[in-house]
Amino acid sequence: MTKNVAVFGAGRIGRIHAANAAALPGVTLKFVCDPVADSAASLAAALGAQVSTPDAVFADKSIDAVVIGSPTDTHSDLIHRAAAAGKHIFCEKPVDLSVPRAVECARAVAAANVACMIGFQRRFDPTFAEAKQRLQRGDVGAAEMLVVTSRDPGAPPAEYLKASGGIFRDMLIHDFDVFRWILCSGDGDEAAWLSASASVLTDPALSALGDFDSTAVTLRTRKGRLCQINTSRRAAYGYDQRFEVLGSKGLLQCGNHRPTELVQWDAQGLHGDKPENFFLQRYAAAYRLEITHFFECLQSGQPFRTTVADGVAAQKLADAATESARSGRPVEF
Amino acid sequence: MTKNVAVFGAGRIGRIHAANAAALPGVTLKFVCDPVADSAASLAAALGAQVSTPDAVFADKSIDAVVIGSPTDTHSDLIHRAAAAGKHIFCEKPVDLSVPRAVECARAVAAANVACMIGFQRRFDPTFAEAKQRLQRGDVGAAEMLVVTSRDPGAPPAEYLKASGGIFRDMLIHDFDVFRWILCSGDGDEAAWLSASASVLTDPALSALGDFDSTAVTLRTRKGRLCQINTSRRAAYGYDQRFEVLGSKGLLQCGNHRPTELVQWDAQGLHGDKPENFFLQRYAAAYRLEITHFFECLQSGQPFRTTVADGVAAQKLADAATESARSGRPVEF
Amino acid sequence: MTKNVAVFGAGRIGRIHAANAAALPGVTLKFVCDPVADSAASLAAALGAQVSTPDAVFADKSIDAVVIGSPTDTHSDLIHRAAAAGKHIFCEKPVDLSVPRAVECARAVAAANVACMIGFQRRFDPTFAEAKQRLQRGDVGAAEMLVVTSRDPGAPPAEYLKASGGIFRDMLIHDFDVFRWILCSGDGDEAAWLSASASVLTDPALSALGDFDSTAVTLRTRKGRLCQINTSRRAAYGYDQRFEVLGSKGLLQCGNHRPTELVQWDAQGLHGDKPENFFLQRYAAAYRLEITHFFECLQSGQPFRTTVADGVAAQKLADAATESARSGRPVEF
Amino acid sequence: MTKNVAVFGAGRIGRIHAANAAALPGVTLKFVCDPVADSAASLAAALGAQVSTPDAVFADKSIDAVVIGSPTDTHSDLIHRAAAAGKHIFCEKPVDLSVPRAVECARAVAAANVACMIGFQRRFDPTFAEAKQRLQRGDVGAAEMLVVTSRDPGAPPAEYLKASGGIFRDMLIHDFDVFRWILCSGDGDEAAWLSASASVLTDPALSALGDFDSTAVTLRTRKGRLCQINTSRRAAYGYDQRFEVLGSKGLLQCGNHRPTELVQWDAQGLHGDKPENFFLQRYAAAYRLEITHFFECLQSGQPFRTTVADGVAAQKLADAATESARSGRPVEF
Repeated sequence: MTKNVAVFGAGRIGRIHAANAAALPGVTLKFVCDPVADSAASLAAALGAQVSTPDAVFADKSIDAVVIGSPTDTHSDLIHRAAAAGKHIFCEKPVDLSVPRAVECARAVAAANVACMIGFQRRFDPTFAEAKQRLQRGDVGAAEMLVVTSRDPGAPPAEYLKASGGIFRDMLIHDFDVFRWILCSGDGDEAAWLSASASVLTDPALSALGDFDSTAVTLRTRKGRLCQINTSRRAAYGYDQRFEVLGSKGLLQCGNHRPTELVQWDAQGLHGDKPENFFLQRYAAAYRLEITHFFECLQSGQPFRTTVADGVAAQKLADAATESARSGRPVEF
Repeated sequence: MTKNVAVFGAGRIGRIHAANAAALPGVTLKFVCDPVADSAASLAAALGAQVSTPDAVFADKSIDAVVIGSPTDTHSDLIHRAAAAGKHIFCEKPVDLSVPRAVECARAVAAANVACMIGFQRRFDPTFAEAKQRLQRGDVGAAEMLVVTSRDPGAPPAEYLKASGGIFRDMLIHDFDVFRWILCSGDGDEAAWLSASASVLTDPALSALGDFDSTAVTLRTRKGRLCQINTSRRAAYGYDQRFEVLGSKGLLQCGNHRPTELVQWDAQGLHGDKPENFFLQRYAAAYRLEITHFFECLQSGQPFRTTVADGVAAQKLADAATESARSGRPVEF
Repeated sequence: MTKNVAVFGAGRIGRIHAANAAALPGVTLKFVCDPVADSAASLAAALGAQVSTPDAVFADKSIDAVVIGSPTDTHSDLIHRAAAAGKHIFCEKPVDLSVPRAVECARAVAAANVACMIGFQRRFDPTFAEAKQRLQRGDVGAAEMLVVTSRDPGAPPAEYLKASGGIFRDMLIHDFDVFRWILCSGDGDEAAWLSASASVLTDPALSALGDFDSTAVTLRTRKGRLCQINTSRRAAYGYDQRFEVLGSKGLLQCGNHRPTELVQWDAQGLHGDKPENFFLQRYAAAYRLEITHFFECLQSGQPFRTTVADGVAAQKLADAATESARSGRPVEF
Repeated sequence: MTKNVAVFGAGRIGRIHAANAAALPGVTLKFVCDPVADSAASLAAALGAQVSTPDAVFADKSIDAVVIGSPTDTHSDLIHRAAAAGKHIFCEKPVDLSVPRAVECARAVAAANVACMIGFQRRFDPTFAEAKQRLQRGDVGAAEMLVVTSRDPGAPPAEYLKASGGIFRDMLIHDFDVFRWILCSGDGDEAAWLSASASVLTDPALSALGDFDSTAVTLRTRKGRLCQINTSRRAAYGYDQRFEVLGSKGLLQCGNHRPTELVQWDAQGLHGDKPENFFLQRYAAAYRLEITHFFECLQSGQPFRTTVADGVAAQKLADAATESARSGRPVEF
């Protein structure tokens, strides 16, 4: 009962998903599609797959599932076509930069009765997932407050930023998903109030794009839980990915992962490693585990941990934050 | 050139200041005043001082300075009288729960040309003060973002809370001072925008008082710097006092202090101490150092690190936060 | 230029090496050999290899290299046969429990001019390897003292222990290799003096076997460097693998690896993860990296980081420690 | 029932003890004695005491106790005279560099029926004392192994070293006391076997003195418990004072104390404080607590935590270690 899979996108994230899928027992990576022929060819060769095209993939009856790791503006179309062709879908976040279009994707997927998982890989990070499990078990009582620190080591190229939808949709979408996953999902709570403040502190060029590099978002849920998210496009010390949940009986503190456990003591003090360099390193295990989860759920029929509805919900928060940061006024839901 | 001092207040905080002052070379604690006769007598006896009254203290030409550690609603009156009597003043925070009355105090002090220091002891905490020094030295570049975590081990009695002025004036006033000290004072920046959200999550009785136990405050400065403050009246793991400053070249992370450096490893994991129990322990060194600073400045004529203007400024932020949390709207300055 | 490989041993360690080798680009795992037919079959099936026998493997001209992960008492014979057949060899430690037989292996390998690497996987652990690199670079000056803490989570079955050669040959052989690698290999220094003390503290049954469960070994090198190794067969908190090197300019401290970076704070204190459970988890990366190194060296012709001579040298130290612990007297070299 | 006290020695350690004693309620520091008149005078003035001489002190009926913080070669004589005069004694370690003379002191003290406490301040360090308490409570089961790391930031002047009795008597005497306190005192266990190895690695001049700067000592107790002590006169990163006790149910790990809890994250990694600078800082609390203990025991009649017998026992181990390091042979008791 091997699952045959095609991967769309042979760029940075597509290669990760392709390699992780190909390494799974019971999964055969058959096709790799990418308009950049060299990328597609080298990835296919490395993993024993063949280069193909979307048309051929969707027409191929042997293909069970597709993994969408191509640029954001292709997601919506590929989801619609995959759903129409009856293929199960793993799609890298976001569903689409437009919430209405993302909602349309959700509808198409439901109508076609295919399974669709959205790649919020943080939910599979071993540290974060352990925190979630302890919350569910009640180890620290009822969740009350969440503080998320999320900083990139440096801004992507201006070209990328122009098409990114802005920092809230591009970067904080993960943080909004963490908010929903950690602070809300235990008992169906949801965001009731959001206020975002944002600045351009690292690169004045961002102002011209109407974008920001530094943000401070606060959310309050219907039950009065509070969440603060602070982000920056530039942390000189590397990729900073932490969160802390205060519960009625304690605190869960998720720290950064480091390449080694070496500490150097010398005349200048004690020195440890910077955090793992960037998302490919920091979330290497998470990327493996999310693809494993995708195929395990296909096999078992269990629901995914992250659905297209989660994708839509996170984008709605990103839209609200964008609006709030621009107006200087909170948004109520 | 010994300084003769009188202390007002023989309660918890008054005893700390009295003992720290009495232990300083060049300082003689002459009088202790407290309406509770037993408290005054026991403190005076322990430190070799005499029980007295405000009238007698202010009339005593030999007294150089007074330390005000009595209840908040006595501060304003004592400051005015001390100023009128030409005594230098160390006053525990806050100046007064009313900003206009606090401003009046500032005026009185200036008019009388006496020195007046307000007890924001966190500025003297060894960890926090080292962070400040590194910021000033530029060790992590220009400050961009500040995240303050400030949680008490448990709420004070309802009686206390009723007279406290609310969580923003009672508890966050310290955090607002930290915001100004760490994020603004380097180059005269000031708060431009504040948004506060707050909830009652630990004790429904607080709602009846119109107060909160959990807050999430965001401030943006004129230069676009961002600050997030999260507080709770109840942290099951003890007194949590941390902040982190992101600079253009790095991060300064101030952790909690712990009673010992013992770690136990056993079948359940690794176990370290909780943070120092509460403010008397956590800030023991800070309380010593701030009184030392007070008398050193009296001696040298150098300005205080925390003035009555700082007290007023912090209270204005506390007022704005109170208003914002009630209205659900940000406040602009 | 794919290398064809056969693996001997389909037990715990054989499976690790087989899977790691099979996952490498440029390596084809052709054969798996194990007298336990089921083990061989399941491993071969999982990795797309075939079950075979030593005779067939050594006779197969297409086989370039063998990986020996079978029981210790088979190592010597397999090394001799592999050398005679002109196959390159990766052999799990130890070469052989008898130093003379291990020396014979070294001779056979040299005579046949095949490459032979011994599996001291700790040299490939990211934390330990980074320490080694900093030492070589002089980051903490000249190495002066090494303290090794090496504790298993629990003793293996009595059956295993009987054939193990005793704790010094079975367990400390890794620590002796670390001693040589970290403290000696920078400038050709070697052990000059060794004193071992050992006890039975966890299980009296070990006394009947003439073995120990707790040891304290000290080594002094010709240049006067000092090394202390402490080991136990039982650490209630799990697998404890640390070392610290004191240099003339600082200290390098290698800590345990943990499954997650989660810390729980509650009324009982702060709680972190135990170390990674046992060697398969703790050294997962090291096992991958050492097999990668083996094949990279075969490809490039570069020398191995761990040779059969290292295997012999570590065993000599293990023999000396066994003698010293029994006699209560030091051994000089 | 105030205790009147005289302090001998107004040098570094004498000043510490004098100030700590003077600050205690119920203790009056009456006299300070030191052949260096200026030192005696400045210390006496700072603490409100008077300069005196040993003759006058011993003749003064009002003096209850003496604190001996003068050079080591004066201890024995002062102990004998204090005992003869019926004064209780707090004496800085060591009792005397000669074990027979130290034994004589113990006899004199017992004969005179005065109380005599020896200043092994580490037993009062909050971290170490908490470890001891947990051991006694059985939190980590039965103690099995102790690893002590004890390193000075730099060697004292050659002049001091000449009269020091060598590294084992001068520096490791504290570590030998820790060994006895942590590993033996729970059930009357004692050292049965000791092996010491030592080198000159930091300063060749030490060889000329017949002394060492780096040592590695192993002890085995009658019950088979093992202890390893590693020391150096020079740790480039400061004063390193740690120990770890392995118990049948876990590990107690005592870390260094640091001046602040600040961690700086930047492009070079994470950076924390070096350990507290040297013994005056690291053991500031311990010095306060041991003097408090001394006077509390005088008051209550309870036995001291560290007696002259402990002083003698530690010195015997120091003598044995000196002998072992020179001969290269272990010593059995």
